[in-house]
Amino acid sequence: MHLLRTLCEIAAPSGHEAPLTEFLLHYIQQHAPGWRVQPQVLAGDDLQDCIILVFGQPRTAVFAHIDSIGFTVRYGRQLVRIGGPDVQTGYRLVGRDALGSIECTLTVDEQTGALGYEFNRDIERGTELTFQCDFRETAEAVQSCYLDNRLGVWTALRLCETLEHGIVAFSCWEEHGGGSVKYLAKRIYEQYGVRQALVCDITWVTEGVHAGQGCVISLRDSLIPRRSYVERIRRIAEASGIPYQLEVEGSGGSDGKELQHGAQPWDWCFVGAPEDHVHTPDELVYKADIDSMLRLYQVLMQEL
Amino acid sequence: MHLLRTLCEIAAPSGHEAPLTEFLLHYIQQHAPGWRVQPQVLAGDDLQDCIILVFGQPRTAVFAHIDSIGFTVRYGRQLVRIGGPDVQTGYRLVGRDALGSIECTLTVDEQTGALGYEFNRDIERGTELTFQCDFRETAEAVQSCYLDNRLGVWTALRLCETLEHGIVAFSCWEEHGGGSVKYLAKRIYEQYGVRQALVCDITWVTEGVHAGQGCVISLRDSLIPRRSYVERIRRIAEASGIPYQLEVEGSGGSDGKELQHGAQPWDWCFVGAPEDHVHTPDELVYKADIDSMLRLYQVLMQEL
Amino acid sequence: MHLLRTLCEIAAPSGHEAPLTEFLLHYIQQHAPGWRVQPQVLAGDDLQDCIILVFGQPRTAVFAHIDSIGFTVRYGRQLVRIGGPDVQTGYRLVGRDALGSIECTLTVDEQTGALGYEFNRDIERGTELTFQCDFRETAEAVQSCYLDNRLGVWTALRLCETLEHGIVAFSCWEEHGGGSVKYLAKRIYEQYGVRQALVCDITWVTEGVHAGQGCVISLRDSLIPRRSYVERIRRIAEASGIPYQLEVEGSGGSDGKELQHGAQPWDWCFVGAPEDHVHTPDELVYKADIDSMLRLYQVLMQEL
Repeated sequence: MHLLRTLCEIAAPSGHEAPLTEFLLHYIQQHAPGWRVQPQVLAGDDLQDCIILVFGQPRTAVFAHIDSIGFTVRYGRQLVRIGGPDVQTGYRLVGRDALGSIECTLTVDEQTGALGYEFNRDIERGTELTFQCDFRETAEAVQSCYLDNRLGVWTALRLCETLEHGIVAFSCWEEHGGGSVKYLAKRIYEQYGVRQALVCDITWVTEGVHAGQGCVISLRDSLIPRRSYVERIRRIAEASGIPYQLEVEGSGGSDGKELQHGAQPWDWCFVGAPEDHVHTPDELVYKADIDSMLRLYQVLMQEL
Repeated sequence: MHLLRTLCEIAAPSGHEAPLTEFLLHYIQQHAPGWRVQPQVLAGDDLQDCIILVFGQPRTAVFAHIDSIGFTVRYGRQLVRIGGPDVQTGYRLVGRDALGSIECTLTVDEQTGALGYEFNRDIERGTELTFQCDFRETAEAVQSCYLDNRLGVWTALRLCETLEHGIVAFSCWEEHGGGSVKYLAKRIYEQYGVRQALVCDITWVTEGVHAGQGCVISLRDSLIPRRSYVERIRRIAEASGIPYQLEVEGSGGSDGKELQHGAQPWDWCFVGAPEDHVHTPDELVYKADIDSMLRLYQVLMQEL
Repeated sequence: MHLLRTLCEIAAPSGHEAPLTEFLLHYIQQHAPGWRVQPQVLAGDDLQDCIILVFGQPRTAVFAHIDSIGFTVRYGRQLVRIGGPDVQTGYRLVGRDALGSIECTLTVDEQTGALGYEFNRDIERGTELTFQCDFRETAEAVQSCYLDNRLGVWTALRLCETLEHGIVAFSCWEEHGGGSVKYLAKRIYEQYGVRQALVCDITWVTEGVHAGQGCVISLRDSLIPRRSYVERIRRIAEASGIPYQLEVEGSGGSDGKELQHGAQPWDWCFVGAPEDHVHTPDELVYKADIDSMLRLYQVLMQEL
């Protein structure tokens, strides 16, 4: 879990993913020689801070978003949300501005809900703050901020080790309105003819989805993927013997949203471990579900 | 109205349009030989469950969505909406899961508004339920679930009988967030140079739009189509002598939304009969308005 | 400011931008011969009512929307909003229908908030009404309806006088759901390889943005542009010595929204003067901020 910890510790809120992109490009350069198949690596300004890895003759693409939720410093000592972080007075936030590194405390006005910070000085307008990472590991689970979606990124990187045919795409802005999957989807479809997607992301423990009972295959959230594709995924999962759970929600979204709304006929399905304490500094995922997630991805990328 | 009844009876909620697609492909194969012009039929995985028919040298495309509203079974005996169905305790719902066919009753919790079902067994998670079809016809009107938009589909099919130049596109997911018109619009524009659209769908009887007074030409809903195009349509309708009504709304949407937001310069206009009891099992449309709708489409496809 | 006044006086609500398009094409034809570089002028049905001007070897595109907010006449004497105009009983509205030109008064129902009009006759269904223009100028400021965004259009036109390399795009529908920037962005990216954008529009005076203290560079609104691009703009502005202010908001949007959500990897940043009395007939902008805006655009288009 050393890699996962490192991923969780890198600050990369939506719009400022570059530090994690840099880490990933370095990691890929170092580790790809040990992978079963050497991928083609697409990156650079035409992909902004995204990365596409192409293995063999791809039929399916995995999308894992690298950005996280956080806060932007506004005027006075006000904060504005990046994505939908949980807020509680006392959460520890970190960042950096022209005056140096920052460790401060989130404040939530009890009356108005207005967000602010406590620190020994004013922070520069526009500075991004993210949760301070307190990575915890037991025999049973991992707990940290940003398991959503550094655990998806981790799964995608581990998948790369044995992947023979497929695409792994690291996307941006998922937590805050999207904005990269549209062009990733276009490029992948036009250049490689791929239109099958798996959204490699973290979902919620709910009354119908339980921690420790396996990776989630989502039948729907706020959007409804094409039934015939989701059914194929269910059948592969069923035949594999790997534990999994089915999710049915009326709300929530993912990179699947941009695939659904893009100008290519993508089939997509959300497949990911469930977490508790969503969007807090204490996101918790069971190791059994991480294991199930990785194994499911390995099988799906072979069979789809 | 036998064809309309058959269309209304086929369950095809958003995301699971395949059964209606199959019916349409079969219908087209059977009936196209009797049509004035033989269309090119585009279908298959690159169009997911959509169909495009190309007649002659097209200048204008008709979009008719084939999906319907409905419900997805969640956990316990909960239901989640597909699109925006009206809900009342007692509505009859039908579906099918691994244990067989289902006829159950919708329940709406009076306190919380939570949706559920009453049935003699639990229904499999993720199963789709749709309104049970009770098709009624009088001398004056037809009444059924899903006239929105099986009546649009019916009009499009009847239009095909005499169409010389034009495109008829059957789209998916309109009732639930969209997701097919973006690629239909791209393909039609790039392959055929067509950028004029008519949205062949059903609208509402309101204080300004009355049942039996003719097909509606919508000047705007939540979006505003380009004025100059809508004016051309008004002038053609006016000159034709066919009864029509003008609609002006501040809310509501259609496949026009995806045309408006796509990356091609589509001009679009919603043209369709008004219905009462919208999104209930008892949608009602006057035959005079159906007649006006079909005749208006015939004229518009010639003149535009 | 004669040109600005003329721009403010032309009615061109979202969806009916054609009158302003016509004015601009005429203006460009007349004045381009006096500009430093002769641009290529792209217009016509494939761009609907938009215009693209291409100067030299472009690296950056300026987007200025030409549409305005307003009202559509519904049924009876009801009005529906175009975009988000401020509403107060007594605002003077103008328009034209088949019976002739219209000068009427906005009414807002105190109980329901319902919008209507007072006039000596009924107005034709679907007629657009816009604020009556009362253009005021002092030594310090200009005040009028529709400075948002006729001042952006004015700035873009003045920028054209000296622009050597770059694109100026006049867009439509910005105030009401968008719909043109997607195809403008696609065409500009595919045809000219340009993926850097400046959104030339007007923003708000707030607790952190003050009238008269310089053009605004927005670090974020409801969406978050890519950090590295915004930082480059800040550095160029800083080095230029031109007064500017930084904005950080959690809401609001612009043409940047469509750039962010399109299928090309656009970097974008909102750069524009702040105004008071937003979306009223009395929008007010300081001349110092107009001056700062134009100079900042001149520098940015050279340096980016």
